[in-house]
Amino acid sequence: MIAEILSIGTELLMGQITDTNAQYIATRLAQYGINHYYNSTVGDNWDRLCGTIKTALERSDVVLMTGGLGPTDDDISKEAAAAVMDCELYLDERAKTEMEQRFSRMNRKMTENNLKQAYLPVGCVPLYNKNGTAPGCIINKNDKIIVLMPGPPKEMRPMLDEQVLPYIGQWCDTTLFSKELKIFNYGESALASTLKDMLDGQTNPTIAPYAQMGEVLLRVTASCRTAEEGERIVRPVIDEIKRRVGDYVYSEDGETLQAVCARLIKQSGLKLAAAESCTGGMLSSSLIDIAGSSEWFLEGAVTYSNEAKNKRLGVDMAVIEKVGAVSREVAALMAEGIAKTAGSDIGLSTTGIAGPGGGTAEKPVGLVYVGLYINGKTQVKELRLSGDRYRIRYNATQHALDMLRKALMTDDK
Amino acid sequence: MIAEILSIGTELLMGQITDTNAQYIATRLAQYGINHYYNSTVGDNWDRLCGTIKTALERSDVVLMTGGLGPTDDDISKEAAAAVMDCELYLDERAKTEMEQRFSRMNRKMTENNLKQAYLPVGCVPLYNKNGTAPGCIINKNDKIIVLMPGPPKEMRPMLDEQVLPYIGQWCDTTLFSKELKIFNYGESALASTLKDMLDGQTNPTIAPYAQMGEVLLRVTASCRTAEEGERIVRPVIDEIKRRVGDYVYSEDGETLQAVCARLIKQSGLKLAAAESCTGGMLSSSLIDIAGSSEWFLEGAVTYSNEAKNKRLGVDMAVIEKVGAVSREVAALMAEGIAKTAGSDIGLSTTGIAGPGGGTAEKPVGLVYVGLYINGKTQVKELRLSGDRYRIRYNATQHALDMLRKALMTDDK
Repeated sequence: MIAEILSIGTELLMGQITDTNAQYIATRLAQYGINHYYNSTVGDNWDRLCGTIKTALERSDVVLMTGGLGPTDDDISKEAAAAVMDCELYLDERAKTEMEQRFSRMNRKMTENNLKQAYLPVGCVPLYNKNGTAPGCIINKNDKIIVLMPGPPKEMRPMLDEQVLPYIGQWCDTTLFSKELKIFNYGESALASTLKDMLDGQTNPTIAPYAQMGEVLLRVTASCRTAEEGERIVRPVIDEIKRRVGDYVYSEDGETLQAVCARLIKQSGLKLAAAESCTGGMLSSSLIDIAGSSEWFLEGAVTYSNEAKNKRLGVDMAVIEKVGAVSREVAALMAEGIAKTAGSDIGLSTTGIAGPGGGTAEKPVGLVYVGLYINGKTQVKELRLSGDRYRIRYNATQHALDMLRKALMTDDK
Repeated sequence: MIAEILSIGTELLMGQITDTNAQYIATRLAQYGINHYYNSTVGDNWDRLCGTIKTALERSDVVLMTGGLGPTDDDISKEAAAAVMDCELYLDERAKTEMEQRFSRMNRKMTENNLKQAYLPVGCVPLYNKNGTAPGCIINKNDKIIVLMPGPPKEMRPMLDEQVLPYIGQWCDTTLFSKELKIFNYGESALASTLKDMLDGQTNPTIAPYAQMGEVLLRVTASCRTAEEGERIVRPVIDEIKRRVGDYVYSEDGETLQAVCARLIKQSGLKLAAAESCTGGMLSSSLIDIAGSSEWFLEGAVTYSNEAKNKRLGVDMAVIEKVGAVSREVAALMAEGIAKTAGSDIGLSTTGIAGPGGGTAEKPVGLVYVGLYINGKTQVKELRLSGDRYRIRYNATQHALDMLRKALMTDDK
């Protein structure tokens, strides 16, 4: 089975948005052992789009198309694919109902334009979309398959993984089993050195590192017939990675750092409160993003000004004047202060210089202190972060979470 | 002049590395007003590569190729392009000398393989490479142009900007001028209806809508000779869009909603504090992400529990018990309470049900109240949001910012 990837959209062609879909699909095809030889991008133009689909069908068995399923007149992917495959369109009742429900939930009026999205090619396998308005579909006719998927990655990816790959997987006799190890604060090159022999010698499972902001995702993928066989193949490799990398590995199921923290806090039965200066609410926000956080998250204080640090957390103004708001001492007092005033068991704090202004030779942009009060003890970590304002704030947040994770793990034993 | 972009490399095709080159080249072509209708990616395979180059030359005047100029045997882009254009290769003395000097500077031995890179098609314009070993070249023959550039972006980009674009720019006399209108809470389909005649009739400038989370970016682009001419072409169209869409348009320079708010607050001389429940710090965090926010952002309170709402903001427990924490009344009391306790002029608040649990028939997931206290008056807006927990929290944050923006604009007059 030979596949081909076709990305549609003038905004992609013009470089206004990055096409991450082609790469995502390519990776998944490779994992399934499905060959593909061409990726193409074409704009929302009828003749060029039809021509490109025809060319693709001549040389490939499956054409995976993304984009051009929107409600506007220049979205023509479905119409073009149906024309090339010689299919009429029909109004799919379920797609229509789901769309109406979606609009009604949002208290928005559904326009005539939107209804266009509920039309699908006759004889297709509809791919209903729980993450957006546009359904996709699979047209399988005359031994050729066209798959139409929406362009937004958060809609395309689950549709591909949950509906499309199982469908085309019918013609493949291997399946894939993956584990995603997430590693915080280890560094991509350091990791490459630590795992060099494993990365060089990999066959089955494969080990693919993806650098992300401040962390590395390591996907360990086995080609196998069953999930049990997959687990047997990946397990010794994962154990060896964890042996070498230690507790920098915080998850092997792709769980986020805040989700791991949330799980550990819940298990501990402790309550948490956060006091933030430079992260400015990002730390609270990332914890509150976990459903059910109201059980253990009591409150957060974004004490950006010195007055707020004093008034809300009881941080002594004399200390701030003596050592400065960005200091080991103030981070400790903030962590203790929020725990005390909120009545929580854990107090987590950040104070630092996020930039671009406000840095000095002694206290440069990127200097951040993270404080953690837990079980009556306080610890502070000094960080030297780099990057723009957002990146410094983001990484400070992640370091605070990681500090909390390690403390809760120790606490656990 | 019609161009086409061709990215070469099996590692690109397989999704092992991201192709940022195609996007970069596309953006630059657009800026030069050079049309291009296709991007393709093909692996390092002789037949498929030659076939793809031939197809590209049939439909385009200039084919911009990146990748496949390396020293190994599977790097065949130059050889394939030369074969399709019917050119011999010659050893370019300058390329050879530069390569030898490079290796000697790096204290590395030049291998026989590397010499392969110094061979160029007879009659080409060599593109010497100051950032890597592989020179590129321009083959201009029989009214068709092939440009060969190395794959690494740090080598490709300067070569494109400094050598290739000035060369093909000989045949271009237009440039592009764009404005980015950002529109909050209007809806993509509603916008398409409101602007239908303008979208249908567009020629110069063009109007391209891009839906983003909760907002639409409308890019208005003029093809012109100078920026002044561009401004003259886009201005009446932008004015007409603003006349129809009204103050839903919050920016015409691609500025974010929080950046607009930050600018308006700074101008007003007022100080702000925020009290968040369901957004849980996201509102404070998005404002604090703007550099210089310490001038006007006093503090934030993430009062997630009812006790915190009472203790930190003075929200009457009796009111919470009577109407619930997610209510118009509590949103108002939170906004007033944070302004009073923080000593700020503006108090902004959110309270709602972010889900997935916690919803009831009366108060479903997605019900959010946003409160704003400003100039001694309080207003509350009820929202019915949809999507997952993150999306509800994100959109609640954006609505709070938009409410603040509108109030500050009125205040301005």
